[in-house]
Amino acid sequence: MKLASLRGPGRDGTLIVVRRDGARYVPAGAAIPTLQAALDDWEAKEPELRRLADRLESGEIAGEPLDVQKLAPPLPRAYEWVDGSAYINHIVLVRKARGAEPPETLRTDPLVYQGGSGVLLGPREDIVLHDERWGLDFEAEVCVILGDTPARTKKDEAHRFIRLLCLANDVTLRNLVPNELAKGFGFFNSKPATAFSPFAVTPDELGDAWKDGRVHLKLRSTYNGALAGDPEAGPEMHFSFFDLVEHITKTRSFTAGTLLGSGTVSNADRARGISCLAERRMIETLDEGAPKTPFMKAGDTIAIEMVDGQGRDIFGRIEQKVVTG
Amino acid sequence: MKLASLRGPGRDGTLIVVRRDGARYVPAGAAIPTLQAALDDWEAKEPELRRLADRLESGEIAGEPLDVQKLAPPLPRAYEWVDGSAYINHIVLVRKARGAEPPETLRTDPLVYQGGSGVLLGPREDIVLHDERWGLDFEAEVCVILGDTPARTKKDEAHRFIRLLCLANDVTLRNLVPNELAKGFGFFNSKPATAFSPFAVTPDELGDAWKDGRVHLKLRSTYNGALAGDPEAGPEMHFSFFDLVEHITKTRSFTAGTLLGSGTVSNADRARGISCLAERRMIETLDEGAPKTPFMKAGDTIAIEMVDGQGRDIFGRIEQKVVTG
Repeated sequence: MKLASLRGPGRDGTLIVVRRDGARYVPAGAAIPTLQAALDDWEAKEPELRRLADRLESGEIAGEPLDVQKLAPPLPRAYEWVDGSAYINHIVLVRKARGAEPPETLRTDPLVYQGGSGVLLGPREDIVLHDERWGLDFEAEVCVILGDTPARTKKDEAHRFIRLLCLANDVTLRNLVPNELAKGFGFFNSKPATAFSPFAVTPDELGDAWKDGRVHLKLRSTYNGALAGDPEAGPEMHFSFFDLVEHITKTRSFTAGTLLGSGTVSNADRARGISCLAERRMIETLDEGAPKTPFMKAGDTIAIEMVDGQGRDIFGRIEQKVVTG
Repeated sequence: MKLASLRGPGRDGTLIVVRRDGARYVPAGAAIPTLQAALDDWEAKEPELRRLADRLESGEIAGEPLDVQKLAPPLPRAYEWVDGSAYINHIVLVRKARGAEPPETLRTDPLVYQGGSGVLLGPREDIVLHDERWGLDFEAEVCVILGDTPARTKKDEAHRFIRLLCLANDVTLRNLVPNELAKGFGFFNSKPATAFSPFAVTPDELGDAWKDGRVHLKLRSTYNGALAGDPEAGPEMHFSFFDLVEHITKTRSFTAGTLLGSGTVSNADRARGISCLAERRMIETLDEGAPKTPFMKAGDTIAIEMVDGQGRDIFGRIEQKVVTG
């Protein structure tokens, strides 16, 4: 089942059920006005939504043509946005890039940060950059959307709380990171609003590609029209989403609609390219002594998508332009 | 105007208008079912709520007796919880306590962290502690609740976006902090659910005590029935709420209902006591070579309140007990 949110009339948008090919949709209806409302009462609402999806898929309901430009992020505002950093290759490269050592517990203790979730960007919304010196970068990621998840959930049970999956562009202002981290309180100004894919899908939509809490597909990033990378999101995700759920629930519970990200998808094989410019800059530094790729500037475009073995675009395409503001 | 949220029937509770003495209330009504709904449309809803408050105050509406036990936090779940650390004395003491240096930009660049906001505690909810070795501590704070606040708001304009004030107990697991900060991504497991005061009040309720983005009143913490501290929340708040708003909006905007905390209220004058046990432990270490006050354990109680010059309890009393779980 593929879900999305049209912008308006309220702040949380309007929940729609989308046909598998992404071309047509049907509103979920007044009883399930928003995705948050569906997540708040998932046991009751999921079957209703699945019935609608089946009728749309079979052609019993024709639905309406979908205009991706009109989509909000699946959750236009969310109660939490927790972002992991589960790809070891990314951590090692980015820390090298800022002259920092990887943490000693790199492979045993997941890294997560708490991001801002009150203002999220839709799949086609511009990234507004106020100052190019801030070093704007994209970060292509896979995310899950949780249902109510109790404290001290173990990884073996974590699958029960994963309602939906989507993609994210975890926009980062690289040049603001070092000073923030030096202060010791984590990222704040360096992480402006994150953008999400058009569609959030139930795990079964991924078929065999959803396995052990990982998505075994390539995540493709296209920067200014050229392929930047298409790393495999599965095998090198050192901590699976199940591990991340166990980690984040160690001391507290999470409410339905919590967004949990994988961190920048990254492969050790350089042929797979990159999912953020910081990695490319580090590779340039290692190979040529200095970075030559600049960070993003006004007019740049970034597209992020994930296509399955049959060539089907699962989550729709994040496609953003940088504008000054 | 004094607002609060009764628990249920939905996840966001039921908005009520509370009489100034805290004894009686009237529901805001179906058109403004929750505090979030009021904040989402504040320009229209505030006058309606004020009219109700006036009628309750004058006795034109009798209202119903208020049972604080039935209160949720003013926002049972919020879109962001951003917590500053604006009292220099607290930063210096707590960093000493963990053998860390204060950041170089201590007095020029505010410290804030992004906290979890999907699950918040009501004023009388237990603090569930799973493991005493985690080093449970309270942190008594003042907070503001923001309306929609645009990116790059300057401190001179910040007052326009401050809708309400309340108190918080920013529960902290001290012994989990050092490892988390060593990883560089900020607090996460070390900050379980935060508790909030019964009432959120409009700034005018504070009269002259609300000045320059600071609350010029004493914040009283009572630990296991004994006064722990009653520091002045005003003069030593190095960064005012206006400064904090300017800081957090440097690179992004915030949605209505964002909670912004002051950080632990702390005075250099030791006679004013403490608003968290970490400070007391550090003072013991400085004076006697080692901390002797243990962190909180099952059965402990913490109360936090703020009383004005006329002896009026403004925000109601946070009163929590630690239980194992």
